Amino acid sequence: MIVRPRPHWLHLLFVRHGSIIYRIFPQLLFTTGLAGVVVLAHGQLFHWKVTLTSSPFSLMGVALAIFLGFRINASYDRYWEARKLWGRLLIESRNLTRQALTLTSAGEGVREFALTQIAFVRTLRNQLRGLPRAQGLDGLIPKERIERLASARFAPSLVLLWLSEWVRDRRERGEIEPILAQRMETPLGGFSDVLGGCERIASTPLPFTYSVILHRTVYLYCMMLPFGLVDSIGLMTPIVVAFVSYTFFALEALSDEIEEPFGNMPNDLPLDAMTAGIEASLREMLGEVPAPAMLPDARYVLS
Amino acid sequence: MIVRPRPHWLHLLFVRHGSIIYRIFPQLLFTTGLAGVVVLAHGQLFHWKVTLTSSPFSLMGVALAIFLGFRINASYDRYWEARKLWGRLLIESRNLTRQALTLTSAGEGVREFALTQIAFVRTLRNQLRGLPRAQGLDGLIPKERIERLASARFAPSLVLLWLSEWVRDRRERGEIEPILAQRMETPLGGFSDVLGGCERIASTPLPFTYSVILHRTVYLYCMMLPFGLVDSIGLMTPIVVAFVSYTFFALEALSDEIEEPFGNMPNDLPLDAMTAGIEASLREMLGEVPAPAMLPDARYVLS
Amino acid sequence: MIVRPRPHWLHLLFVRHGSIIYRIFPQLLFTTGLAGVVVLAHGQLFHWKVTLTSSPFSLMGVALAIFLGFRINASYDRYWEARKLWGRLLIESRNLTRQALTLTSAGEGVREFALTQIAFVRTLRNQLRGLPRAQGLDGLIPKERIERLASARFAPSLVLLWLSEWVRDRRERGEIEPILAQRMETPLGGFSDVLGGCERIASTPLPFTYSVILHRTVYLYCMMLPFGLVDSIGLMTPIVVAFVSYTFFALEALSDEIEEPFGNMPNDLPLDAMTAGIEASLREMLGEVPAPAMLPDARYVLS
Amino acid sequence: MIVRPRPHWLHLLFVRHGSIIYRIFPQLLFTTGLAGVVVLAHGQLFHWKVTLTSSPFSLMGVALAIFLGFRINASYDRYWEARKLWGRLLIESRNLTRQALTLTSAGEGVREFALTQIAFVRTLRNQLRGLPRAQGLDGLIPKERIERLASARFAPSLVLLWLSEWVRDRRERGEIEPILAQRMETPLGGFSDVLGGCERIASTPLPFTYSVILHRTVYLYCMMLPFGLVDSIGLMTPIVVAFVSYTFFALEALSDEIEEPFGNMPNDLPLDAMTAGIEASLREMLGEVPAPAMLPDARYVLS
Amino acid sequence: MIVRPRPHWLHLLFVRHGSIIYRIFPQLLFTTGLAGVVVLAHGQLFHWKVTLTSSPFSLMGVALAIFLGFRINASYDRYWEARKLWGRLLIESRNLTRQALTLTSAGEGVREFALTQIAFVRTLRNQLRGLPRAQGLDGLIPKERIERLASARFAPSLVLLWLSEWVRDRRERGEIEPILAQRMETPLGGFSDVLGGCERIASTPLPFTYSVILHRTVYLYCMMLPFGLVDSIGLMTPIVVAFVSYTFFALEALSDEIEEPFGNMPNDLPLDAMTAGIEASLREMLGEVPAPAMLPDARYVLS
Repeated sequence: MIVRPRPHWLHLLFVRHGSIIYRIFPQLLFTTGLAGVVVLAHGQLFHWKVTLTSSPFSLMGVALAIFLGFRINASYDRYWEARKLWGRLLIESRNLTRQALTLTSAGEGVREFALTQIAFVRTLRNQLRGLPRAQGLDGLIPKERIERLASARFAPSLVLLWLSEWVRDRRERGEIEPILAQRMETPLGGFSDVLGGCERIASTPLPFTYSVILHRTVYLYCMMLPFGLVDSIGLMTPIVVAFVSYTFFALEALSDEIEEPFGNMPNDLPLDAMTAGIEASLREMLGEVPAPAMLPDARYVLS
Repeated sequence: MIVRPRPHWLHLLFVRHGSIIYRIFPQLLFTTGLAGVVVLAHGQLFHWKVTLTSSPFSLMGVALAIFLGFRINASYDRYWEARKLWGRLLIESRNLTRQALTLTSAGEGVREFALTQIAFVRTLRNQLRGLPRAQGLDGLIPKERIERLASARFAPSLVLLWLSEWVRDRRERGEIEPILAQRMETPLGGFSDVLGGCERIASTPLPFTYSVILHRTVYLYCMMLPFGLVDSIGLMTPIVVAFVSYTFFALEALSDEIEEPFGNMPNDLPLDAMTAGIEASLREMLGEVPAPAMLPDARYVLS
Repeated sequence: MIVRPRPHWLHLLFVRHGSIIYRIFPQLLFTTGLAGVVVLAHGQLFHWKVTLTSSPFSLMGVALAIFLGFRINASYDRYWEARKLWGRLLIESRNLTRQALTLTSAGEGVREFALTQIAFVRTLRNQLRGLPRAQGLDGLIPKERIERLASARFAPSLVLLWLSEWVRDRRERGEIEPILAQRMETPLGGFSDVLGGCERIASTPLPFTYSVILHRTVYLYCMMLPFGLVDSIGLMTPIVVAFVSYTFFALEALSDEIEEPFGNMPNDLPLDAMTAGIEASLREMLGEVPAPAMLPDARYVLS
Repeated sequence: MIVRPRPHWLHLLFVRHGSIIYRIFPQLLFTTGLAGVVVLAHGQLFHWKVTLTSSPFSLMGVALAIFLGFRINASYDRYWEARKLWGRLLIESRNLTRQALTLTSAGEGVREFALTQIAFVRTLRNQLRGLPRAQGLDGLIPKERIERLASARFAPSLVLLWLSEWVRDRRERGEIEPILAQRMETPLGGFSDVLGGCERIASTPLPFTYSVILHRTVYLYCMMLPFGLVDSIGLMTPIVVAFVSYTFFALEALSDEIEEPFGNMPNDLPLDAMTAGIEASLREMLGEVPAPAMLPDARYVLS
Repeated sequence: MIVRPRPHWLHLLFVRHGSIIYRIFPQLLFTTGLAGVVVLAHGQLFHWKVTLTSSPFSLMGVALAIFLGFRINASYDRYWEARKLWGRLLIESRNLTRQALTLTSAGEGVREFALTQIAFVRTLRNQLRGLPRAQGLDGLIPKERIERLASARFAPSLVLLWLSEWVRDRRERGEIEPILAQRMETPLGGFSDVLGGCERIASTPLPFTYSVILHRTVYLYCMMLPFGLVDSIGLMTPIVVAFVSYTFFALEALSDEIEEPFGNMPNDLPLDAMTAGIEASLREMLGEVPAPAMLPDARYVLS
């Protein structure tokens, strides 16, 4: 449990928030620069006065905000659902290990079972991040299994099958009663849910056409805005345009980032830290001393 | 897992997004052309000045945006629920195959069970897409069953009954204990949920009256808009009208498209690719080498 | 599965949507007529000039739209939850029949069980529609049971008890093992959920005060609107008022209609068609040839 | 099932909605009166002209509407969740009684079990309404148990324990097999969910600070509004202020009322009627003739 | 059950709401003071007239309100989910104790089991509040276990394992049948859900970039606002600016506070009172007289 200090309100105004500001910087410079040119030209384009006022922007601004609000909500829902799935992975792996320790008489055999669960978590991370299937599995499962995973298309699904086989073997050896063994299907089904849920989020983006329509509307809006403001607020036009563009561009870029929560960007989910956390919790249940918590990163400075 | 490259922000402004732009092109041309005519006629209709200002459009614009926002949300919820149901189909078919492999001693008999599951997925796709009931079932289930499905009204429901009968036969032969057999009811119930859920979405659209009211309001709004703008922004009227119409028409058309997520339009769910994915995952669990991933389509170019 | 053709966008502008337009016609005529009178009187009421401008309407319009948006959302949630409950009825009745066929050795006795389920569905429809309790039960359950239902206050709950008794009788006769019999409690509990859920929606409307406040605000708004517009848009006032009133009145009337989804209005749920669909699916599982699909109605023409 | 007639639209404009209008009447009178004074003073306060226009109100109005929209949504969610919990109480008590009738051979003993369930429902109502713990329990459970409840802090939790003990006693007497007895834990757990859920809603209000901020913003807004309107709409100011105040005050007051759904106000949940309904349904299952439906109140006249 | 009196509407205008007003006081003073300076300087900055009007603020205000609305919703969802998790902790601990009392024949041994559950609740509170792991555990569990927890990284997870071991020991001693023992996995899994859910909320804040973008937009908006208002409303500018700033700052500060619901701030969840409530309920089930309810604090005065 990391208690995060809250930054001072003044500090928040000047903190850098990493990748977002770099991603939107060119566009921001472009619209602000355009606003400057429009002010210098008194709203004329090739000696022809562009007769825009602020009223059409008022019409469009509300619609834009509502549609962007939809985008933010939908993206955040994907992000939070992905986080919940990984939270459930921790819950179910604890359940599975706890049940192996208290429902079976497998004794030392439980360690092999718990390590296979850690292998499940790592292959899931590998699949979601596009890493080689068998990365980070050494010492967790036997060599020949690692080799089989290296060429597998759905690697975590195979590891899940092996977990089921472990339970079957205990049952056949009489180390667990059938009535208790069938109970272990609940967390195994939970692993299956997490796997399928993550695959769903990773393979199905928001309808691409939504993103395109919103992107276009946001950019055209910000590019036409200087013409609508120059007659009433004159020299202040570039400042207002920069302000409006910053808000819209940054929110759109952030939505775009968290919409795919399994990526490597600063606002994406810290899959490595969460994988390490699950491993530490399982090892502690086995009586080992777990590794200390891995900080995802120094969020308030870098992100 | 397909890692999608993010397109450049400038590129996004010019990408075609397939069917939507073709669907709304006539309307867009009509309202823009109308705006042009209104500018030329100085807002007069048959020599009579239409005395509209932008203030009623401001009143209506907000309401419109909120109601259209409702439509977008409701349509997207249908789309995402449909996607979740197909994701659950993958999850439950993996569970069912895994349980057949580890809870029963059916040995080679599991293959027949897994192929029947694939038949379930295909008949479901056939039903949702309006295809012939028995399409693509050859080699999965016996001929006489295929014939029975060809004339069935609820084909997937019959396949589900056969899956249940397979479990019953194993139980009666003593290949699975009753306490474990009853556990296999969980994924079988999951299949039933997916089937019923997809039928619900397919058979119950959004209340049609909503769509009609919104459609009318959007189109009348865009047709009256030029009269409200011509006096204040003159020659810029057609550009603003095109901009507003594009956003509203495109969002309405997209909502209309994803509202029925099982169709064949570019933004609908890729049922064929998902069917192939489920089959590949089950075959891999049986020890076969699965087919490579089927790309739904080259989304960022065509859609 | 009925593939619905999408109507042409121009066609949508002129389609009648049945009951809604008739319900709101008097109000619409009233506000439009009032607007006409206000134009003729130049905004004067008994020789006294009403000094309204459009700015208070702008203030109120946004608030109105948001509150009406709440109403639409809440009503649609009720409608969709009701639809989900009926979808679950189909799912659970299939589960129950499938389990009776594969978990028990009841043979021909299953038919009686399935017919009793159909009786459950019909008594539920009767209760929700306010029909006589025992309507349409002939041939499904014995006469004396029909008589008992005719005077029952919670008829479907009694039918559910009989379904449970059928399972108990099989268990006592040794036609199903207890471990499998207890599994049939899951779909029986599903029936109970559907019954209680439908009763909840039917007996608890949206807080009536919400409806009254919104109704008043919408109507007063539309009645005062002509005075606010006449000075700036003159002769166009009745057209704008008709437009605004149509959108607000129609959305309010539709929300009011689907808020009680079990009624007999055109936009309510097609309970008869859904009842027939459940019956057809159960009969097909029993090996009978089901009746063809019953079209709820020709939606795109009449509704 | 009570089929509610829909009131005529004109009638809705004049219906009284009880407590709300009385609660907000003083405030409404105050702001309207203030508007009258402002009109008479031509917007001057102690001979000093208050230079407000409508534009700051336009800025604030949208924000206000959105925040009030949040409040309405959150309050309604609490109300609806509370209603769902009571709906589930009906569902689970039917399940429990049905299971006692068909899974056990307790015969006449089931009646005692069902009456204890009714006692559970009544103690829950007593706790939520702040009534004496043991009110209305005579004849349902033995005297000494009533006495124990009278001094209990968590009375329904004790009744739930007694329900569990009834099942244990049947199991120990061999009147129910263990495999069936464990199934009765499902509805017992449902009772526990309902109890804990109601306690959560009753003990945790919306963050009080939200209510305060919104309350202040709404009231200050309405008090400052006359100064912003008097210059443009003159004598119409009090009417518009009354209209705006009525909408905002009434929605805030209603949200405040349903936010605590277990109270005794007209828009709160009819706990007495629901308690009576559960009792009637259980008695009907036992073969008794239930009491006729209790009307919560004549809603369309009084509320 | 504490029945809260509703404060009078006038009283609400003057109640202090503790930490929020202190947190935002400096900012509020700053923007209001700035507005005063702007009025005195007639909108000039270093002898240069800032040519802002209210129209860009109208554009931005709606967008701001919508994005702040998103923030409020998302923060409140986190708060309410956290409250639900603690509500479920009460539910599941009652279930577990009830099952230990009625499914096992452990007799006096149940007390040890219930005390270990209280220890689970306290270690969870300790972890979420960043307190020493073993605080408040004396008398609940043996000394050597307390010592082990003091150095544990996931203390509640270990306590959960001990609860499971208690059930295993009863099962091995024959004090509970396996078919009933497996049922106790349900509430044990519930404990695991609550633990994992709380860890998820505590370790994953809202994407920090959202907070930064909104914070900046809100503050820049309020700082630029005086320049946009001074020309039209003159001396009233500081009052309007104070009003707008108060609403926006206070809502942002409150969202920031409840976003982390496990903290020690006045609007955070009363973890101590809830811990005491769970303990009291369990002790009452064991036949002890529970401690009286602990008031979280005098909310309507201090918060």
